[in-house]
Amino acid sequence: MEKFLVGVIMGSRSDWETMRHATETLEELGVAHEVRVVSAHRTPELLFEYAAGAKERGLEVIIAGAGGAAHLPGMVAARTSLPVLGVPVQSRSLNGLDSLLSIVQMPGGIPVGTLAIGPAGAKNAALLAAAILANKYEAVSAALERFRRQQTATVLADPDPRLPVGGDA
Amino acid sequence: MEKFLVGVIMGSRSDWETMRHATETLEELGVAHEVRVVSAHRTPELLFEYAAGAKERGLEVIIAGAGGAAHLPGMVAARTSLPVLGVPVQSRSLNGLDSLLSIVQMPGGIPVGTLAIGPAGAKNAALLAAAILANKYEAVSAALERFRRQQTATVLADPDPRLPVGGDA
Amino acid sequence: MEKFLVGVIMGSRSDWETMRHATETLEELGVAHEVRVVSAHRTPELLFEYAAGAKERGLEVIIAGAGGAAHLPGMVAARTSLPVLGVPVQSRSLNGLDSLLSIVQMPGGIPVGTLAIGPAGAKNAALLAAAILANKYEAVSAALERFRRQQTATVLADPDPRLPVGGDA
Amino acid sequence: MEKFLVGVIMGSRSDWETMRHATETLEELGVAHEVRVVSAHRTPELLFEYAAGAKERGLEVIIAGAGGAAHLPGMVAARTSLPVLGVPVQSRSLNGLDSLLSIVQMPGGIPVGTLAIGPAGAKNAALLAAAILANKYEAVSAALERFRRQQTATVLADPDPRLPVGGDA
Amino acid sequence: MEKFLVGVIMGSRSDWETMRHATETLEELGVAHEVRVVSAHRTPELLFEYAAGAKERGLEVIIAGAGGAAHLPGMVAARTSLPVLGVPVQSRSLNGLDSLLSIVQMPGGIPVGTLAIGPAGAKNAALLAAAILANKYEAVSAALERFRRQQTATVLADPDPRLPVGGDA
Amino acid sequence: MEKFLVGVIMGSRSDWETMRHATETLEELGVAHEVRVVSAHRTPELLFEYAAGAKERGLEVIIAGAGGAAHLPGMVAARTSLPVLGVPVQSRSLNGLDSLLSIVQMPGGIPVGTLAIGPAGAKNAALLAAAILANKYEAVSAALERFRRQQTATVLADPDPRLPVGGDA
Amino acid sequence: MEKFLVGVIMGSRSDWETMRHATETLEELGVAHEVRVVSAHRTPELLFEYAAGAKERGLEVIIAGAGGAAHLPGMVAARTSLPVLGVPVQSRSLNGLDSLLSIVQMPGGIPVGTLAIGPAGAKNAALLAAAILANKYEAVSAALERFRRQQTATVLADPDPRLPVGGDA
Amino acid sequence: MEKFLVGVIMGSRSDWETMRHATETLEELGVAHEVRVVSAHRTPELLFEYAAGAKERGLEVIIAGAGGAAHLPGMVAARTSLPVLGVPVQSRSLNGLDSLLSIVQMPGGIPVGTLAIGPAGAKNAALLAAAILANKYEAVSAALERFRRQQTATVLADPDPRLPVGGDA
Repeated sequence: MEKFLVGVIMGSRSDWETMRHATETLEELGVAHEVRVVSAHRTPELLFEYAAGAKERGLEVIIAGAGGAAHLPGMVAARTSLPVLGVPVQSRSLNGLDSLLSIVQMPGGIPVGTLAIGPAGAKNAALLAAAILANKYEAVSAALERFRRQQTATVLADPDPRLPVGGDA
Repeated sequence: MEKFLVGVIMGSRSDWETMRHATETLEELGVAHEVRVVSAHRTPELLFEYAAGAKERGLEVIIAGAGGAAHLPGMVAARTSLPVLGVPVQSRSLNGLDSLLSIVQMPGGIPVGTLAIGPAGAKNAALLAAAILANKYEAVSAALERFRRQQTATVLADPDPRLPVGGDA
Repeated sequence: MEKFLVGVIMGSRSDWETMRHATETLEELGVAHEVRVVSAHRTPELLFEYAAGAKERGLEVIIAGAGGAAHLPGMVAARTSLPVLGVPVQSRSLNGLDSLLSIVQMPGGIPVGTLAIGPAGAKNAALLAAAILANKYEAVSAALERFRRQQTATVLADPDPRLPVGGDA
Repeated sequence: MEKFLVGVIMGSRSDWETMRHATETLEELGVAHEVRVVSAHRTPELLFEYAAGAKERGLEVIIAGAGGAAHLPGMVAARTSLPVLGVPVQSRSLNGLDSLLSIVQMPGGIPVGTLAIGPAGAKNAALLAAAILANKYEAVSAALERFRRQQTATVLADPDPRLPVGGDA
Repeated sequence: MEKFLVGVIMGSRSDWETMRHATETLEELGVAHEVRVVSAHRTPELLFEYAAGAKERGLEVIIAGAGGAAHLPGMVAARTSLPVLGVPVQSRSLNGLDSLLSIVQMPGGIPVGTLAIGPAGAKNAALLAAAILANKYEAVSAALERFRRQQTATVLADPDPRLPVGGDA
Repeated sequence: MEKFLVGVIMGSRSDWETMRHATETLEELGVAHEVRVVSAHRTPELLFEYAAGAKERGLEVIIAGAGGAAHLPGMVAARTSLPVLGVPVQSRSLNGLDSLLSIVQMPGGIPVGTLAIGPAGAKNAALLAAAILANKYEAVSAALERFRRQQTATVLADPDPRLPVGGDA
Repeated sequence: MEKFLVGVIMGSRSDWETMRHATETLEELGVAHEVRVVSAHRTPELLFEYAAGAKERGLEVIIAGAGGAAHLPGMVAARTSLPVLGVPVQSRSLNGLDSLLSIVQMPGGIPVGTLAIGPAGAKNAALLAAAILANKYEAVSAALERFRRQQTATVLADPDPRLPVGGDA
Repeated sequence: MEKFLVGVIMGSRSDWETMRHATETLEELGVAHEVRVVSAHRTPELLFEYAAGAKERGLEVIIAGAGGAAHLPGMVAARTSLPVLGVPVQSRSLNGLDSLLSIVQMPGGIPVGTLAIGPAGAKNAALLAAAILANKYEAVSAALERFRRQQTATVLADPDPRLPVGGDA
C-alpha cells in the first residue's frame, strides 16, 4: 500500500483544525493518504484537475471538508466517479447547518456521503473510507476491526460515570 | 443593445417554472438576455466554459437559479468576475432553506448577490440586473424607472382590499 | 455477480415509495441487491441479526432508509463494519429535518454516509454504493461511467428550457 | 426499597455533566437508582442486554440521555416495555436540536417520554420517574409532594428580583 | 378497572383528529380513560380544577395534546404531581415545531414527558401511559406485551416491500 | 400617577438580567410600575391571583418575561383582559427560539403582544406599554415623545462609525 | 366612537385573506376602524405619510400585516409613537418564519407588539387593540369582556370531542 | 474617480465591526466610498433622504448592513433604483438567521442582493459592488482582476495545511 488511497482535501487552511481528525484516524488505521487545501471558489481549476485526475493517480476515496456554502464535496463528486465523503465544517454564524445542507442536499445523480458537522464527522469520514477500502484490502479490514473492538472495550472498561476514567470503587 | 447583456442559467429544466419570472421581467424591461440549462453537478465542464467565456461574449450580469445543495451560482462566480446573482429555487423537503443557505453563505472572496426563495427572487434578480445595467445604459435606466412608477401606481390605485381590484365604493 | 452485493433496508413499508428509487438505480446499474423491511424499533433483534450477518452473507454495502427519529442506519452501522449509507425519508411534520439530523449527526466512531432527504437521496445512495463497488468490480465501474455519461448527455441535449424536451427551434 | 427502581444510562461519559442532575434529584427524593454508561453505537450488545433484562432486575423506569444522533433512548424502548424517558444532551454544533429530534420523533409503536434539552431535562426526567413511581410507592409520593411544596415556597419567599435572595427591604 | 386511569385532554375540538389516536390505542389496550376538551387559554379555571382534582378522582396519568403556543400540558403538570404526557399537535404555519418546543422545553421542576408531533405522538402517549400503568396493573402489562408482540409480528410477516401486504411471491 | 400602571413579572429570578431593561426604561419614562417573580409552573395559583386581580388593583398593562417553554405571558393573558406584552428570555440551548414560539404562537382568542428575544425585547415592552398608556395619560405621551426625539438625536450626532462617539474630524 | 380608532394596514392585497380576521373581530367588538393597503417597499412615501399622520387623524392603535421580509410594521412604528401591532402573514416558502422574525426582532427603541403567524394572529391583533382601547373606552371594555365570556362558554358547552358540536349523549 | 461611487451604511455603530470589512475591501480595490450610520427605525427621515438623494449625488451602489429585524437594506431599495446590496449582521440570539431572512426575503418588485451573514458578507458586498462598477470603470475592473488573481495565488502557495503558512517541507 505505498500509493495514496485516500485524498483528504479542504476548502481553507482554517478547516484543518476539523479535518486533522480525519487524517489522524487514517494514520491510526494505517491508511495511506494525501492532504491538500483545494478551494472550490478561489481555485476552481485546481479543484477540477484534482478531482478529474484522482482516480488515475490511484485514489479510491476522497474526503472533502468545507464550511458555509460548502461546494467543495459536491463539485469534486461532479468531476469524478470515485466515492466522495463530505464533512460539514462548523460555520461561525449558523453553527454548520449551512455547511450540512450545502453538502448533503445534492440532487439525484451526483452523490456525496455526508458525515456529521465538525470533528466527529471528520473522524467518521476516515472510518467510512476505511470501511470502503476494507472490502478490497485485507489490511484495512483488519485495522478497522481492531479499531472497533478497542472502541467497544473502552466504553465497557469504565461503566460508571461517577468514577474517574480507569478508577475503581 | 443587440448582444445579450444578461445570462439566465439554471441547474435543471425543472427550475424553469421559477426562473421564467426572471426572463419575463427582463423582457418587460427590454433587456436582451440568453437562457440556458447548465448543471453544476451533471455538466461541470459546461459550467466552467460558460462562466469563463461570459465576459468575453458580452454578458454583464449572470443570474443563476438552483435548488437543494445549490452550487451553480457560487461556482459560476468562482470562474468569472462578472456580478453573479443567485436565485434559490424552492426545494421539496426543506422549502428552499437549503437552497438559500447553499447560495448566500459564500465565503469571503467570491460574492453571490442572493435574492428571495422562489418566483419573487427570480423576478427581483431581473430587477437587480436591470439596476446594475442602468448605471451604464440609459435605456435600461428609463425602463426601470417606468417599471417602478407603474408598480407604485398599481398599489395606490386599489387601496381598499375589501373591494375587487379596480373597483370603487 | 450472482450473490447480493448491496442490502437495501427500510424501517417501514411506507418508506418503499422513497427507497424504490435506490433499487431502481441499482437495477439500472446491474448491481445485485436484496430488499427488506427491518424496523429498528419494532424488530430490533432482526436488525441486529441482519447487520451482524451481512458481511458473511457477502454484502459489501448496506443502504438504510428511515424517517422521523431514524435510528435504523446508525444501529446497523453499530453492528457491522461494512459501509452503511443512510437515506432520510421525508417525515410528515418536520419535512425530513428530523430524519436527516437523526441519521447524519452520528458521534465519532460509528459512521453513516448520509444522502439527501427523499427520493434524490435514495437514488444517490445507489450511485454511491456503485462508486464504492466500482473500486473492486470492473463491471460496476463500467456501468457507473456509462450512467454518468448519459446523465451529462441528457442535460446537454436540451439546453433551452423554453422548448419542450427534445424539441428544436 | 432496597432494589433499584430507576436505571439512569447515558451514551458517553461526557454526558455525565448533564445526567448528574437526574441522579442528584433522584437522591434528593430518596429513589434508589443505578447509573451506567451504555453506548447505543459503540456497545450495542450491552444496550440490548441492559434493556432486555431491566424489568427482570426490578427496574420500573429507565432514564436515558444522549446527544447528536441520539439513538439510546429509542433503542432501549425497542427492547423493553418499561417506561423510557429520554434526555437530549446539548450537542456542540446544533445546540441539542439534533438530540431532541432524534429522541422525540419516535414512530408510532415505541414511545419515549422526552424532556427538555440539557440539565433541566435531566432533572425533570428524575421528577417524572418519581411521579410514575408515586402511583405505586407511597414513600415516593410523599417525597415528591414535599419537593413540590418546597419548590413553590422558594419562589414565594423571594418575590422581588431587585433584592438579593432572602433579602428584605 | 372500573374507574378511569387515564385522562385524555386537548386544547381544542380541532385537536381531536390527532388525539383520537391516543384514545383508540387505550381502547385497544383495555385501559379505561376519559376524554375532555380543556383549553388552557379559554378555560383556565377549568384547567386548574381538572388538574388539581385528577389524582383524587383516581386518574394516574394525564395525556394532554395542544398546538401552537401549547401551554396545556405544562400548566396541567404545574397543578398536579401525576405524570403528564404531552402531545404536540401539528400547527398550520410551523408544522408543529412551535407545539413541540412549547411542550418539551419545560424548566427544571415541572416535567412533561413529550411525544412526537401528530398522530404518532398521540398513539405513543397511550402506549407510554400503558407502560406506566403496567408497573402496577397486571392486566395492562399483559395487554401491552401482547400489543408489542403483534406489532413485531406484523413487520416480520411482510418483509418484502415490493409485494403487497400479506402477499407472497 | 401614584398607583402602579404597569406590572412587570418574570418566571424566575434569573430572568431579571433581561427584564431589568424593561423597568429601567419605565423609570426613564416616569411610568409607575411594580416588579414581581411569578412562576407559571412553580406558583400557578399565584399567577392566577396576580392576573385576575391586576385590573382591579389599577394596572393597565402587564409585561411578562419568561424563557424556554414560556407559558407565563399566555397564562396571564388567559386570566385578564388587560393588554399583556410578552418578552422571550434567551434560553441556553435553543437561543430563545423556544421562548419566542411559546409566547408568540398563541391561538386565536387570547393575544400576547410579543417583543424581541432578550434585553432589546424587554426595553421595547416598556416602550410599547408607554405607547399604550400615552393614549390616555398626557405625561406618559410627553415622556415618550421626548425619549423618541433623544433617540433620534443620538444617532444623528455620531454619523461616522470610523470616529469615536462624540468625536469630530 | 364615530372616528376610527384603529388602522388596519397590509403590505399587499394578497394579505387580505389573513387580515380580514382582524377587521371581522373589530367589527364584532364594535371598534371603528379603517382598512388600507400600504406597501413599505412599493409605496414608501405613502407609508410615511400614513404613519406620521395617524395620531393626528385620531387613530390610537395601528395593526400592520405583512409577509416575507416584512418591513411594514417596523417602519410604521419608526414614524409614529402610537402602539403598533404586527401580524406575520404566512409566506409560501418559509411558512411565515421569515415574516415572524422580520417583525418581532426589532432593535431596542422601536417596539412592535407581534402576534402569531396567520389568521389567528390577525384575530388576536384585533383583540389586543381592543384591550388597549378598553383602558380608556368603557364600551370597548364591555364588548371585550362579553367576547371573552362567550368564548369560554363555547368551549365549556361542548366538552366531549367525540360528539358533534352541540350534541348530547 | 473623485466622487464617491459606493455608499456604505449601517443601522447602528455596533455594526461597524462587521461593516469595516466592506470598507477595507473597497479601499484595497481603490473604490471611493462614503460611510454613514443611518437607522431605519430611529432615523427614518434620514434614511429616506439618503436613499432618495443617492443617485443624484453620484453613488452607483449602496451597501447596507443591519441586524435582527433588518429593514435598512430593503427600505433603501424602496427609495432608490440604484443596486442595493444587503449584509446581514450577526445578531445575538438567533445568530443572524433573523437578519438574513429580513433582508433576503424581499417581495417581488424591490430587490436587495444579499450576501452572507457577518464579516464575510461585508467583504463580499464590497467585491460585488466592485464587480458591478467594473462593467463601467476600467480601473475597478483591473483592480478586481488583480484581487482575484492574488486570492487564488494565496491558496495555491500553501497547499499543505500541516505546514505553517509559507513554510516548506
